[in-house]
Amino acid sequence: MAKEKLIIFDTTLRDGEQSPGASMTQEEKLRVARQLERMRVDVIEAGFAAASPGDFNAIKTIAETVRDSTVCSLARANENDIRRAGEAIRPARSGRIHTFIATSPIHMEKKLRMTPDEVLEAAVKAIGIAREYTDDVEFSAEDAVRSDIDFLCRIFDAVIAAGARTINVPDTVGYSVPSIWGERMRTLIGRVKDADRVVWSTHCHNDLGMAVANSLAAVQAGARQVECTINGLGERAGNASLEEIVMAVKTRTDIFHLETGIDATQIVPASRLVAQITGYPVQPNKAIVGANAFAHESGIHQDGVLKHRETYEIMRAEDVGWTQNKLVLGKHSGRNAFKNRLQELGIPVNSEEAINAAFARFKELADKKHDIFDEDLQALMSDESLPPAHEHYKLVSFKFHSETGEIPHAELTLSVGGVERHAEADGGGPVDAALKAIESVVGSGSELLLYSVNAITTGTDAQGEVTVRLASGGRIVNGQGADTDIVVASAKAYLNALNRLYQGNERLNPQL
Amino acid sequence: MAKEKLIIFDTTLRDGEQSPGASMTQEEKLRVARQLERMRVDVIEAGFAAASPGDFNAIKTIAETVRDSTVCSLARANENDIRRAGEAIRPARSGRIHTFIATSPIHMEKKLRMTPDEVLEAAVKAIGIAREYTDDVEFSAEDAVRSDIDFLCRIFDAVIAAGARTINVPDTVGYSVPSIWGERMRTLIGRVKDADRVVWSTHCHNDLGMAVANSLAAVQAGARQVECTINGLGERAGNASLEEIVMAVKTRTDIFHLETGIDATQIVPASRLVAQITGYPVQPNKAIVGANAFAHESGIHQDGVLKHRETYEIMRAEDVGWTQNKLVLGKHSGRNAFKNRLQELGIPVNSEEAINAAFARFKELADKKHDIFDEDLQALMSDESLPPAHEHYKLVSFKFHSETGEIPHAELTLSVGGVERHAEADGGGPVDAALKAIESVVGSGSELLLYSVNAITTGTDAQGEVTVRLASGGRIVNGQGADTDIVVASAKAYLNALNRLYQGNERLNPQL
Repeated sequence: MAKEKLIIFDTTLRDGEQSPGASMTQEEKLRVARQLERMRVDVIEAGFAAASPGDFNAIKTIAETVRDSTVCSLARANENDIRRAGEAIRPARSGRIHTFIATSPIHMEKKLRMTPDEVLEAAVKAIGIAREYTDDVEFSAEDAVRSDIDFLCRIFDAVIAAGARTINVPDTVGYSVPSIWGERMRTLIGRVKDADRVVWSTHCHNDLGMAVANSLAAVQAGARQVECTINGLGERAGNASLEEIVMAVKTRTDIFHLETGIDATQIVPASRLVAQITGYPVQPNKAIVGANAFAHESGIHQDGVLKHRETYEIMRAEDVGWTQNKLVLGKHSGRNAFKNRLQELGIPVNSEEAINAAFARFKELADKKHDIFDEDLQALMSDESLPPAHEHYKLVSFKFHSETGEIPHAELTLSVGGVERHAEADGGGPVDAALKAIESVVGSGSELLLYSVNAITTGTDAQGEVTVRLASGGRIVNGQGADTDIVVASAKAYLNALNRLYQGNERLNPQL
Repeated sequence: MAKEKLIIFDTTLRDGEQSPGASMTQEEKLRVARQLERMRVDVIEAGFAAASPGDFNAIKTIAETVRDSTVCSLARANENDIRRAGEAIRPARSGRIHTFIATSPIHMEKKLRMTPDEVLEAAVKAIGIAREYTDDVEFSAEDAVRSDIDFLCRIFDAVIAAGARTINVPDTVGYSVPSIWGERMRTLIGRVKDADRVVWSTHCHNDLGMAVANSLAAVQAGARQVECTINGLGERAGNASLEEIVMAVKTRTDIFHLETGIDATQIVPASRLVAQITGYPVQPNKAIVGANAFAHESGIHQDGVLKHRETYEIMRAEDVGWTQNKLVLGKHSGRNAFKNRLQELGIPVNSEEAINAAFARFKELADKKHDIFDEDLQALMSDESLPPAHEHYKLVSFKFHSETGEIPHAELTLSVGGVERHAEADGGGPVDAALKAIESVVGSGSELLLYSVNAITTGTDAQGEVTVRLASGGRIVNGQGADTDIVVASAKAYLNALNRLYQGNERLNPQL
């Protein structure tokens, strides 16, 4: 018997991106979207078109590029938002508008200052406008977890009649538990009039660590779409992890009797890409995509293949895309091999000049590092990804010295808006000295919230990938830099963050 | 009405410690145990006494020190294991023996090579021997998830008759889902004869991301003990997170109607301590203890305090121990202030010499770093914690230089078994050069599996805490080092790992 399908709706680019400092450039969003398409995600929520012109353009570019996944924009239930979303997804082969409005007494009263009847009317009207652009319209009842069940049924009846095709029930605050959450979904599906004409969806937050279990309880109660993110990225404790949802359904078909369209071997590459771009690391003991997730894989596998009445599909590391580091290029690799590998990795290279510039950096890296892995290339290209026009601050050269009994000292030359500036400073260590030297020139006054380093590959000649998170004037940005020299990587990361602060990025962050 | 109690059984020191490279020294285990006691954990599983003499001694020391929590040792269901466990917990004010045997057909046949009747007999005999040492005996059916339910009932009947007081049902492979897991617990409690004379317990692994939800489903079905670890530490994707279990029960008393004895304000300090000692970082989007977990806390709080029929206790960052960095000491702080603060932090200082040595290092740090936070002290003392006798390799002095266009170079003087050795090397960066210089003297041939850095506090003069993970001859060790100079911290971490390799540490890792 063919299994029923569970629709995987990825919101890494929308809800995931709302994590402090996780905002991505348009080019980074496109890279993530392409990886999601490669993984065969059904719906990619590419952003919130009305949030900012940058968001609008990113969604539009993704809609122009992605062919195999539905491309979706979020929109509040008002005409302007819906029309912006409709314009943004217009180029998509398959486009969706996802509109939402709060339905809990608290939010209706305090935030919207609307009566329930007004909220219902706005929702119905929003669906009507959305249907001018696409038949594929989704409606979310924001803060459904604290909404009155009678009112939920009434608004869902109305939006279904108005043409909504997907009804999403979010646990906005992440405080639900599976037994309760499944029950709520079951009640809604049982009571809403044309429940069988729509796809029921759930969107869970992880504040108590149960986003995945809550989502799957909703699935057991009849939901056929789960909204989730790569690595469980998202505000606070994040959203349900796509990889956990997908592998639970795949591993336990005996319980769920469902299938997803996901190519699971693309999970680990997607996880790495998102971690690298957002600067949000994955802890080693994270299910599926953590470095230790399969540390004892052979043992389990051996047990599992033995037949037993309570069988399930055994996960193997290679099923979710774990591979050995692949040695791909070295010092003597040519321009063509380099270009081909970038294409295989799905890294867009837009012009011959961009390839030439990247190849020059590759050669520079190959001088310092014997073996160049895929991860090195990704870091190299990610470094390249901020268009030069935006690089207000740039590292030209550096020198530092440290010795027992002496105060560490760094000297740098920076390019600031094209003008070279010399800087030097002492510090507690060479990184401290380098960042102080930069700050002495830039004077951003920003606060360093986070500083972390991960080796991109293993071995002592690995490139260090440094992430810094800066807060300045109420904004938070991440910066990344990679280099075999950790002090240089730190300086690059700091400058990258300063460039993002300089660039500015104002936008709205809906609470769904 | 007084709420029923949920017993929190922490196995960070046993199952958590089985994570690759997470093994702790006796002194580190003691520090964690003291923090668990301070948090008012009911039962501390301090180790597996028969695994190694080191494990035995660590349990014994913890049993001698901890007064307010029950101290437990794991033991296979054989006489030698039980007697070792019994000896190890003898000094405890309240001691428990936790014995286990596999009950799934796969394990009985292939691993134990025993018939079900033989397994049952061994279990009953084990309980009898354990009762010679303590009345507080726990029995676990290893791989209960794949065991025959009739056999489980039969063996549980027998061990309860023999005197077991706690019956633990583990999901060893982490593949269960809440609906199924709750049902299994309900069935067992319904069918086992004297079910109401014992405490039912669950122990879940997180391979599909549902360890916490599975544990709580078992609680809803009648379990009154949850086995869990700080940060969800544990092999593969880890165990159920203590912090998530505790805060879910506390936040949703409307669902669980239970209380734990835990002092939740000790959760974040416990999380940090375990992350720091084991070198296992916590991702920012981890529930409760991740750096972002409360990023939007004020917003939720504001909503939540408004009354609503579906109310729950709102978690606030300060409830789980998040505090602003506390400035405690500076350059001019005296020896007494230093000593007092260590005592307040629960860091053991065993002799006047140890305090003097630590105070000297504190003064050295204060010269490099303006503000000294609690986290700095913890790192400083952790550095001190490997007894000098075990420091075969030690950093005496260093010098490094790096400059655009030149190859980074490091020179070091090491003490190797008390003899000074000079080393120098070039590298891709100063860290690479420093580690290569060390390796040129030590020649360990080990493979660098992981290299990561976290800033201990914020600000550019933060100390960097470096973790390296080395593999050599089938063993995996972590090493840590902290310094304001990241290159020095890296060299220290590498030497710390080499010291652990040199020290040796053979032991058994049961799969529960």
